[in-house]
Amino acid sequence: MARFDGLSAVLLNCSLVHEAKNSHTRRLLNRVRGIMVTEGVDVEMIHMLEHQIGFGMVPDTTTIGDERDDWPGIHEKIMDAEILVIGTPIWLGVKSSVATLAIERLYAYSGEKNEHGQYLYYGKTGGCVVTGNEDGVKACSMETLYALSHIGYTIPPQADCGWLGEIGPGPSYGDEIEGSAVPAGYDSEFTNKNATIMAWNLMHTAKMLADQGGFPVGGNVADTWQDVTNAADQDPDAD
Amino acid sequence: MARFDGLSAVLLNCSLVHEAKNSHTRRLLNRVRGIMVTEGVDVEMIHMLEHQIGFGMVPDTTTIGDERDDWPGIHEKIMDAEILVIGTPIWLGVKSSVATLAIERLYAYSGEKNEHGQYLYYGKTGGCVVTGNEDGVKACSMETLYALSHIGYTIPPQADCGWLGEIGPGPSYGDEIEGSAVPAGYDSEFTNKNATIMAWNLMHTAKMLADQGGFPVGGNVADTWQDVTNAADQDPDAD
Amino acid sequence: MARFDGLSAVLLNCSLVHEAKNSHTRRLLNRVRGIMVTEGVDVEMIHMLEHQIGFGMVPDTTTIGDERDDWPGIHEKIMDAEILVIGTPIWLGVKSSVATLAIERLYAYSGEKNEHGQYLYYGKTGGCVVTGNEDGVKACSMETLYALSHIGYTIPPQADCGWLGEIGPGPSYGDEIEGSAVPAGYDSEFTNKNATIMAWNLMHTAKMLADQGGFPVGGNVADTWQDVTNAADQDPDAD
Amino acid sequence: MARFDGLSAVLLNCSLVHEAKNSHTRRLLNRVRGIMVTEGVDVEMIHMLEHQIGFGMVPDTTTIGDERDDWPGIHEKIMDAEILVIGTPIWLGVKSSVATLAIERLYAYSGEKNEHGQYLYYGKTGGCVVTGNEDGVKACSMETLYALSHIGYTIPPQADCGWLGEIGPGPSYGDEIEGSAVPAGYDSEFTNKNATIMAWNLMHTAKMLADQGGFPVGGNVADTWQDVTNAADQDPDAD
Repeated sequence: MARFDGLSAVLLNCSLVHEAKNSHTRRLLNRVRGIMVTEGVDVEMIHMLEHQIGFGMVPDTTTIGDERDDWPGIHEKIMDAEILVIGTPIWLGVKSSVATLAIERLYAYSGEKNEHGQYLYYGKTGGCVVTGNEDGVKACSMETLYALSHIGYTIPPQADCGWLGEIGPGPSYGDEIEGSAVPAGYDSEFTNKNATIMAWNLMHTAKMLADQGGFPVGGNVADTWQDVTNAADQDPDAD
Repeated sequence: MARFDGLSAVLLNCSLVHEAKNSHTRRLLNRVRGIMVTEGVDVEMIHMLEHQIGFGMVPDTTTIGDERDDWPGIHEKIMDAEILVIGTPIWLGVKSSVATLAIERLYAYSGEKNEHGQYLYYGKTGGCVVTGNEDGVKACSMETLYALSHIGYTIPPQADCGWLGEIGPGPSYGDEIEGSAVPAGYDSEFTNKNATIMAWNLMHTAKMLADQGGFPVGGNVADTWQDVTNAADQDPDAD
Repeated sequence: MARFDGLSAVLLNCSLVHEAKNSHTRRLLNRVRGIMVTEGVDVEMIHMLEHQIGFGMVPDTTTIGDERDDWPGIHEKIMDAEILVIGTPIWLGVKSSVATLAIERLYAYSGEKNEHGQYLYYGKTGGCVVTGNEDGVKACSMETLYALSHIGYTIPPQADCGWLGEIGPGPSYGDEIEGSAVPAGYDSEFTNKNATIMAWNLMHTAKMLADQGGFPVGGNVADTWQDVTNAADQDPDAD
Repeated sequence: MARFDGLSAVLLNCSLVHEAKNSHTRRLLNRVRGIMVTEGVDVEMIHMLEHQIGFGMVPDTTTIGDERDDWPGIHEKIMDAEILVIGTPIWLGVKSSVATLAIERLYAYSGEKNEHGQYLYYGKTGGCVVTGNEDGVKACSMETLYALSHIGYTIPPQADCGWLGEIGPGPSYGDEIEGSAVPAGYDSEFTNKNATIMAWNLMHTAKMLADQGGFPVGGNVADTWQDVTNAADQDPDAD
């Protein structure tokens, strides 16, 4: 059995609930955190709405007039971690405004490079956790995982997990259900299995990348892509 | 510089154009193929519409009444390759019906497992190539890469590339432009850079996975997820 | 209470199931059909996979080499109807390949105009019906309704309905459930309410448009947009 | 030619730019405003980031601890208008966090009803304006128009318009281009035509609905859906 000492993870909860302890998404994130901590990963959970995060495509929104912006501190933690998990609730079938904001702020650093000249987030791995009332896990995961991949994260197999209630209004993840000893979703084998697979695949991928000092260098350095075997030199009209 | 002898790739062109040679998407796939072949990868390009592929969520649609189904043969090639690239045009902002069909047929095997008990496509890596008239590369990539990740593929950083014409009607990738010596898009540094990065990242990831005999085993075997540190055993209500 | 005699509707079932009677999506479409027929609408249900439909962005794929293409006949029926409902199952979170194919074939006529010079589908109204195992109604509806709107259909409020099973593997709409007298989803108040609202809103909108001879003309005729108050003449830099 | 005196519209700019005058999206919204004003519509443009808008699925976030929330005032203006246009930039292929926030806040009133017992936004019509660097107009429109339809808005044909620069980094809408007398996109016939059609179709639909006192009542009142011809009474297993 692999062990993952030395790795670290940030779980970024993009719930619309103001206080961390009331977030439904946090409950499923907690399960992921539990697995990772048990396996030796150093995990920090951050609840976005307990911070003040500015809007804008800049690394620090105090440079565009905000009095305060907590994002640079959060970003530092994300940069120190090999793993990032974005947690989001679903509203109207899509990820939350807070999740969208987090991704915009990550993307605002996309001009920067790592020590190999690769985009900043190369060498890291990411996943997402989604909870909702009835519909939309895959739609939220698509957007979130694509964004992470686009900025440099490696996405393992089955890098998302989630829970949905039955169609129509109903309890959210972890809500008490009258007449049931088990809160909503807590006994979902499907959700627990997927959360387990996601957590392990993130740890495996983080370790695999860490063992070789990051994502392999070659062909993926923006400044020198023309010096390697490259697309511009290939014949698009070949048979 | 890494070399990639011994790896193989399938490039699956899901164009709506019946003859391979007339496909715009094929032109960009050709550039990706050129890079991979030069670096030692054994590449096969398959044009879906030169085959007869049945509809239905089964491995072989002759079992549900079709007279002929070429998918099982294509699937065998996909299973033999470490890399899969799905090429798709954009229509109305989304991937083609043929790309959707290809993904459905891949998914129809999702009950099967590999020799480690992981889902069938674990240990492989995937990307996508998108071409269109004006809009939709990211929307197509989101859906396509998510589907691949969901069934077991590892998705490298920046695993997609594409080309779009200017907004409004206009030439497709590789079309002749009056008064220009260069066909549409052939000199796009952006497209060529991204195609290069995608091709290399797929090769790096395939090699990384092949070097360890597939995606690491542990926590990601559906039948035994409860035997490892797992989500069901963690406290969702932890502080 | 409004009555809708004289209106007609096509319900286009884009199931992956070959025989109409085995389709889960058909069952929910049947409920929509029942409402419309009772209210005086002439309804035709078409099961795409009982026809042979070609791939390609042309009105008739026999012009690009197919031996047979049933789409032109289907398209004629769609043109004769004021209402179009697209029914689709969900696979991997998105609409079926057959639904994507149907939309591509609708779009292939997008160069044509109606008698007022508006795009061909102006004056018609559309909706969609989605059924799935666990997730994705809204994601399918987004793509489908957007496509219809883009080509000229008017989209009423709440123009979609659907059913989803609980998260994880389970029965599809209308499947027998052991120990239950009611097939899966048949007693879902949420689904029945939404199907009712969708059906009525499509009928209301169709009647409203029919009563004025189609969608109002003015500012929406591609050939003469510059002759009316238009965007090119407005100041983008106004305060 | 129709005239639209007596109608009113809110254009909600969900740009990430803090000051209205620097927003690229505003420039295209301005063109839409110009058309509407000329045709007699009373138009108010609101720049979301010049207000302080809280996060949370409640009508007023001061009830959940925020010191200030400008949304209730904005919402009142939206309720007074027959037309709503959401303007959004594209980041990473999707609509902005601010647009997502606006939609969440609209949705937070979704339990309320209008004077007919229909959902609150029935009788109104909506569209969207999207600007970006290179890709994503349709993806943003899909999500935005679906959300509006879901909460009660009627969506006219071709209810969106947008501008995109060429693929790769480049100017945004209205940016100066070296060597050109015309700012980026200002002479795009495609964008101007679509903005014109959208503006007119919103006005036509608003007038059509206003002329009959809102969206027709019948079958779309949540409390009484079982009293009309409804889905629960139809046979899902009909031939």
